[in-house]
Amino acid sequence: MNTIEVCIVPSLFNSLNHNDKAIVIVDIFRATSIICTMFMNGASKIIPVNDINEAIAYKEKGFLVAAERNGKKMDFADFGNSPFEFIPKKIKDKTIVYSTTNGTQTINKCKENEIVLIASFLNLSAIAENLLQLKKDVIILCSGWEGDFCLEDSVFAGALIEKLISSGVFTLSNDAAISSLDHWNLAKPNIEDYLKKSFQYSRLVRLKMIDIIRYCLAFDKTGLIPVFSHNYLILNK
Amino acid sequence: MNTIEVCIVPSLFNSLNHNDKAIVIVDIFRATSIICTMFMNGASKIIPVNDINEAIAYKEKGFLVAAERNGKKMDFADFGNSPFEFIPKKIKDKTIVYSTTNGTQTINKCKENEIVLIASFLNLSAIAENLLQLKKDVIILCSGWEGDFCLEDSVFAGALIEKLISSGVFTLSNDAAISSLDHWNLAKPNIEDYLKKSFQYSRLVRLKMIDIIRYCLAFDKTGLIPVFSHNYLILNK
Repeated sequence: MNTIEVCIVPSLFNSLNHNDKAIVIVDIFRATSIICTMFMNGASKIIPVNDINEAIAYKEKGFLVAAERNGKKMDFADFGNSPFEFIPKKIKDKTIVYSTTNGTQTINKCKENEIVLIASFLNLSAIAENLLQLKKDVIILCSGWEGDFCLEDSVFAGALIEKLISSGVFTLSNDAAISSLDHWNLAKPNIEDYLKKSFQYSRLVRLKMIDIIRYCLAFDKTGLIPVFSHNYLILNK
Repeated sequence: MNTIEVCIVPSLFNSLNHNDKAIVIVDIFRATSIICTMFMNGASKIIPVNDINEAIAYKEKGFLVAAERNGKKMDFADFGNSPFEFIPKKIKDKTIVYSTTNGTQTINKCKENEIVLIASFLNLSAIAENLLQLKKDVIILCSGWEGDFCLEDSVFAGALIEKLISSGVFTLSNDAAISSLDHWNLAKPNIEDYLKKSFQYSRLVRLKMIDIIRYCLAFDKTGLIPVFSHNYLILNK
């Protein structure tokens, strides 16, 4: 049996034993959904950067840069944080530098890990199948919101857990995984309805981004699996 | 309106704005349930200490000491971590030095806070009434297990939240509070049944402590409210 644990906020990650485990990074609204989108639309490589100055330096070197803070596009950037901006015409075969409030910070916590998968509802089933093949213990690392827990990442973790435990070869290994499965079971009949009470949902509605919410909650739009390897996001071979 | 947020793991506490808020500390299995019990049975004061060496030093000065690590009584201590040990004959009018794996560490994070209440199912309604009178924003600080999230503290947080929001003068202010209320709603029909899937429940059952579980899940056994003030736990005046 392999284990699944949920890292409920990124700051706990370093206190977990993550040696030789597969790390699944989740930031439903919106970094991991957008990373999946970039690859769906042909991007060849993504460089996740924490620091805005680093993103600006890449921009000055001629890179395409996507950068947002607190949900808003940075002035210097080519793209903000809407999945609809990353159209094939603009990004096909390109390297994109990407910096966000939560998600890219979380990704960069995993520089030492060998297996780091980028997950969203858009590639949920592909991620589950990949984990079943890998036969490794799994940590689902939720990005949350400004360091705190967020409900949508937990719901996604629960959806992934349901798929993994139904195989009979995975078992849960912390209460956060149990909690996520509870949230998923509550959300499953209608995820958007369930998430209406969450703070990120309200924030995105206030920013008139209901179309982005719906986009990020759509299941299995791709079989692609972005992985974090040697400081870059690339597609899993 | 006042706000309620849940601090889902203790390591997040310092990143929250906790100025002028009422802090409610929760460690259902078992520190906050035991602190309530000590006062119910006549203790006059409790000194929560983080460090085992500090507890030993108090013991050498003649204090009564309760100390456990990972659920087991330390050899040098007078008491371990069973609520049934703290009988009036032994503790009435006494000061007790108390050190545990999770709960007392959490309490000592709140040395700078003015209003710090110790909550458990044993004094749930009293805590809710006190908070309604205080008219302050509230942070429910869950101790968790070894720094990670635990389900029983979240269930308790949800039970307290339900009482506070039913007054109409409190509103939730983070997703962790929403999550806790979900857990409480799932657990409410039969809390023990619900918690059977949690890791702490299994751990306590393995240690043959089912009677302690049931004791800690009993509602409203006291109207007493322990508070943390000037490094001591005392009863609220």
